[in-house]
Amino acid sequence: MIVARLHPDVLIDEQSRLTEVWRQRGHRSFHCRAGRHTLVTFPDLAAASPQGREFLALLGTTGAVESVVDSTDAPPLGSLAATGEPSAVRVSDDCTVGGGRFTWIAGPCAVESEAQLLGVARAVRERGAHLLRGGAFKPRTSPYAFQGIGKDGLDLLRAAAAETGLGVVTEVVDAAHVEAVAEVAHVLQIGARNAQNFALLHEVALTGRPVLLKRGFGCTVPEWLHGAEYLLAAGNGKVLLCERGVRAHGDSTRFTLDISAVPLAKRLSHLPVIVDPSHACGRSDLVAPLAAAAAAAGADGVMVDVDGQGHAALCDGEQAITPDAFGALVRRTDRMLHSLDPVEPEADAARELAGR
Amino acid sequence: MIVARLHPDVLIDEQSRLTEVWRQRGHRSFHCRAGRHTLVTFPDLAAASPQGREFLALLGTTGAVESVVDSTDAPPLGSLAATGEPSAVRVSDDCTVGGGRFTWIAGPCAVESEAQLLGVARAVRERGAHLLRGGAFKPRTSPYAFQGIGKDGLDLLRAAAAETGLGVVTEVVDAAHVEAVAEVAHVLQIGARNAQNFALLHEVALTGRPVLLKRGFGCTVPEWLHGAEYLLAAGNGKVLLCERGVRAHGDSTRFTLDISAVPLAKRLSHLPVIVDPSHACGRSDLVAPLAAAAAAAGADGVMVDVDGQGHAALCDGEQAITPDAFGALVRRTDRMLHSLDPVEPEADAARELAGR
Amino acid sequence: MIVARLHPDVLIDEQSRLTEVWRQRGHRSFHCRAGRHTLVTFPDLAAASPQGREFLALLGTTGAVESVVDSTDAPPLGSLAATGEPSAVRVSDDCTVGGGRFTWIAGPCAVESEAQLLGVARAVRERGAHLLRGGAFKPRTSPYAFQGIGKDGLDLLRAAAAETGLGVVTEVVDAAHVEAVAEVAHVLQIGARNAQNFALLHEVALTGRPVLLKRGFGCTVPEWLHGAEYLLAAGNGKVLLCERGVRAHGDSTRFTLDISAVPLAKRLSHLPVIVDPSHACGRSDLVAPLAAAAAAAGADGVMVDVDGQGHAALCDGEQAITPDAFGALVRRTDRMLHSLDPVEPEADAARELAGR
Amino acid sequence: MIVARLHPDVLIDEQSRLTEVWRQRGHRSFHCRAGRHTLVTFPDLAAASPQGREFLALLGTTGAVESVVDSTDAPPLGSLAATGEPSAVRVSDDCTVGGGRFTWIAGPCAVESEAQLLGVARAVRERGAHLLRGGAFKPRTSPYAFQGIGKDGLDLLRAAAAETGLGVVTEVVDAAHVEAVAEVAHVLQIGARNAQNFALLHEVALTGRPVLLKRGFGCTVPEWLHGAEYLLAAGNGKVLLCERGVRAHGDSTRFTLDISAVPLAKRLSHLPVIVDPSHACGRSDLVAPLAAAAAAAGADGVMVDVDGQGHAALCDGEQAITPDAFGALVRRTDRMLHSLDPVEPEADAARELAGR
Repeated sequence: MIVARLHPDVLIDEQSRLTEVWRQRGHRSFHCRAGRHTLVTFPDLAAASPQGREFLALLGTTGAVESVVDSTDAPPLGSLAATGEPSAVRVSDDCTVGGGRFTWIAGPCAVESEAQLLGVARAVRERGAHLLRGGAFKPRTSPYAFQGIGKDGLDLLRAAAAETGLGVVTEVVDAAHVEAVAEVAHVLQIGARNAQNFALLHEVALTGRPVLLKRGFGCTVPEWLHGAEYLLAAGNGKVLLCERGVRAHGDSTRFTLDISAVPLAKRLSHLPVIVDPSHACGRSDLVAPLAAAAAAAGADGVMVDVDGQGHAALCDGEQAITPDAFGALVRRTDRMLHSLDPVEPEADAARELAGR
Repeated sequence: MIVARLHPDVLIDEQSRLTEVWRQRGHRSFHCRAGRHTLVTFPDLAAASPQGREFLALLGTTGAVESVVDSTDAPPLGSLAATGEPSAVRVSDDCTVGGGRFTWIAGPCAVESEAQLLGVARAVRERGAHLLRGGAFKPRTSPYAFQGIGKDGLDLLRAAAAETGLGVVTEVVDAAHVEAVAEVAHVLQIGARNAQNFALLHEVALTGRPVLLKRGFGCTVPEWLHGAEYLLAAGNGKVLLCERGVRAHGDSTRFTLDISAVPLAKRLSHLPVIVDPSHACGRSDLVAPLAAAAAAAGADGVMVDVDGQGHAALCDGEQAITPDAFGALVRRTDRMLHSLDPVEPEADAARELAGR
Repeated sequence: MIVARLHPDVLIDEQSRLTEVWRQRGHRSFHCRAGRHTLVTFPDLAAASPQGREFLALLGTTGAVESVVDSTDAPPLGSLAATGEPSAVRVSDDCTVGGGRFTWIAGPCAVESEAQLLGVARAVRERGAHLLRGGAFKPRTSPYAFQGIGKDGLDLLRAAAAETGLGVVTEVVDAAHVEAVAEVAHVLQIGARNAQNFALLHEVALTGRPVLLKRGFGCTVPEWLHGAEYLLAAGNGKVLLCERGVRAHGDSTRFTLDISAVPLAKRLSHLPVIVDPSHACGRSDLVAPLAAAAAAAGADGVMVDVDGQGHAALCDGEQAITPDAFGALVRRTDRMLHSLDPVEPEADAARELAGR
Repeated sequence: MIVARLHPDVLIDEQSRLTEVWRQRGHRSFHCRAGRHTLVTFPDLAAASPQGREFLALLGTTGAVESVVDSTDAPPLGSLAATGEPSAVRVSDDCTVGGGRFTWIAGPCAVESEAQLLGVARAVRERGAHLLRGGAFKPRTSPYAFQGIGKDGLDLLRAAAAETGLGVVTEVVDAAHVEAVAEVAHVLQIGARNAQNFALLHEVALTGRPVLLKRGFGCTVPEWLHGAEYLLAAGNGKVLLCERGVRAHGDSTRFTLDISAVPLAKRLSHLPVIVDPSHACGRSDLVAPLAAAAAAAGADGVMVDVDGQGHAALCDGEQAITPDAFGALVRRTDRMLHSLDPVEPEADAARELAGR
């Protein structure tokens, strides 16, 4: 399996011409734009085969290809080797995720009312949030549980975005809702229960909107990255990976935050990594230390349940923190991240840290 | 949360009248037919509340209600308490799952060609299979892996069913395919990765066809039963639960077959329980002992990957057994099950086993 | 790593002479008697090296060696390849575990009093038990919980054995108790929490008594087999492996019985495999189906908590079954096992089952 | 279950007198010194019972008791409620763990030679380590694997401590070695495989030396805290808890670091919490981000495998980092921790963070 990075100035026409040549030779190809790079993968091409060598030589003569990587196991379009650098995902004029910034996503677990949503949205914006989270459609274990207020929730999210200027992150649980959600959301969220719902991933990718892909709580890190590859292979390179805890033994926390998955995903993939400590632990008293841990481990942002109304929330209220606790968390973590910015004598240290 | 079992002779009109009364009082209700019982649940009704007591009294006067259970945690429509007995699911004139029979479901992991499918279908029918499994649409971890031959596969399954008389069990991975799959399949399968894809569950339920619901590999037993409840609450009582292994530590087997889930599900739910040892262990040499264990633990059937062509299968070939191994497994297990049929002095023993 | 099976008629003197030759060449060797075989392993010897080839040739000339296996990953002395057949472990004149028999081990979780122990011992003997279980020393999660009645419990076990003729299986938790336990126990049990307490394994092995080694609930199958190898390498080949459930997600059962580990261990190792369904599930209502599943999966026996006094037991009372439920389980399972005995036309079937 | 904190100036004689009163009433009691507090627990005493109320009243009259807590589930002597503040553990004149300091423990996985140990010890001391780790006795999965150089290793550790002034942390795997290890070690380590080897815990506690207790990889957080309680109940309050990863699904990392366990243990217990990222992930490239995450989550220190000789280490070489990578990690993390020190306007923030 081969993945090629094209020169930034290769035009769409030239890309199409390349793809056509490949297609006529019977090869499938998939491409996407990731950050400032255009990537193409040929899943059926073995670099070591005679045909592979010939084709690679042909690619070289076109002058369109900046680099070629022979991807063995890792999903090719999402691999760090393909881009050679972490990619940033532009969400709105005001907000780009990745690329050295740390992104705060905050809001209620579920959208319940105009007063609730606007109250929280204003409160978190004032305290440093970059994006507003809030579920209009909620996937619930029981069919009888509160499932979100649906399209009314989308309207409230649109109004809150207009009022506060915050971009919106909201979940889509049904292909039938993708269009409606995409009209409102700046980032479409795929929840943990749909992490391997490949039909939904495909539909969501086609909107061209940024997608936040939660890791399934029974999924390995490779399965999570392969899930993201479904989005990339459908042409959508604006993918945010989101670690939200896995199922392990013990019930002291709701799930087990797999903190190792953060640096691991950063080493394997160019995609930004977000951590959701709220759903991982299910306890408001552990959210702040886990958010700080995520930042220290190299995450590009965190997504936190914030609620102004205490434990009366209709969904997962016991894990939300107050706006003021959120503000304190932002100040403390930003100070910590600032202390980690590389300073002069640390060039050596960075090399040492990377080395063994 | 209350679930009521209606008298078998209550007519649809009477049911509607009851439902309407409930609706006018502002209560949601959900009903389904499970085996020979019609069940109705009122998720918002607390039996101990004044309103609940009044309504229960009203129900009593209608004469339509056979029994009422106050379901606390267990999903009400699927609970064993609701029916008072295990329910059987009629799949075709020749095949009913549950109700004391043991059902053998066998066939290739993926449908690949007419020759392959028909060969295996004939071979397993001759050796005792009741239903033919085979995937036309395959959910694969990687977007570049073989995803099944799609609608061509459905045509082959239809032909194999016509030729052999076997009913077909095949997976549906996309709401957009439900209609096409339902035209061919006697049982629609929801795979482990879609076990909590509630939008798909809803669409599949509406076909009225029997549904085999695999347990998600990261899901608890209650989550699996709640998933089935989505099907039942949509009015489809023909649900087969399928245990297929969960994610646990260790890599000696692909997943860890949770054998305890079989008797546990049988105690909590009236729905038949099928076990898929092939996908649970991922190794052909463990399929026979695990199938026997499932039967001994009280499963209503097993679903086994059988392939005639050795390890060249395009999907999961290493876990399929040969038709002859399948035949030996059927003979040996059926003999074992026959030995377990209650004989005269065992009436006491059964009581003892149930006791303590 | 090489393991050799010696001819049954090789005398101890000849063995010593071989070992001495090996030692003078600087090689470590470990040997044990397993069933009717004497096995020797040379962990530092690579079969493919020049030295290895030369030494293997030398072995061949001695005439003492029946077969040689180059063990790569599997623990050599415990591997099925070493003996070429399952080994049986003789526990007493009346009881041999493995070798085609199915062994019932039953008794209270903890020894509490003479009346309790003798009552249960007599009751389970009458109903088919071959060995009596009962903990005198109990490893408990909390230091303040009931830890067993200690040496008084050993005295009661000795009396119960004398009275009923049943052999005793009891746990040892401390190297300081090994001598006292070995005076009473026919089988010394290593509990799950000490499964990798290698110092204790060594002391227990030196008694020469049969050892029942529970799998640690966080241990993989290979780690369990390596634990057994500590016993074998210390010269004690009388090892019973015991699967008792692993830690996985979900809390419907106390642990998750890893039923696949039974046929897997039987394929990798010659040692008998026992299953403890009581501690695996922690619920008396699941013990019978899980015991039957263990038998069907190929286990050589089960160990069951049986208690006559209901839920007042000082330790794990909620998982014990009554003597009558035990009796029903024995009758039903023995009938099932009898049905599985190979009959004439099944020679082919057995080959088929093994095949693919 | 009740736990009482005594006034700091209560003399041993007075304590003994109290204990004697309790004993004569038939109550067990256990006490230990934790940081600057003396704690006593009465596991058999129910605060709500008449006897409990009477006894509490009696306690009140003695004037010796500073506070009394009714501990329900949490292990009493280790509970944060008992001391009301985190406790610090004094290891040597130069090193106290906990109490606001961050402790760096570094060194080779296994002690191999004088040159190796001294080289690493000097290198890590120069770069900021407070304690030297190194295994003389190694518990290994296979009986044939390198088990450490034993007592020779203790001699080398003693020499390295004398030469560098660093205190020594080293594992004890056998009660028979406790005395020899205690002569050399400033901190005795209980490894994950012996985390519930209660006999060993008892012997180690009796030395009076600080003990680092690793969490068993199959153990829950409560089981880990109950294990520590065995040490405390034996009179040794100098306990360091060590999180080192649990068994979960997936094999991208060797174990799954349970980062949530760090803030959770800090909320439940007064004992310092150390994290071992090296054994948790088993990969040198993830050690630095996980160590930083541990510090950010509130750990009191980390223990890191550092090796100067590359991948030729006899044990777990692939997870060790170089001395220079260790130095960079220390500088970067200490800068980060410094940024987290509470500054003036953060008093409010701290309250907010603690709040909901």
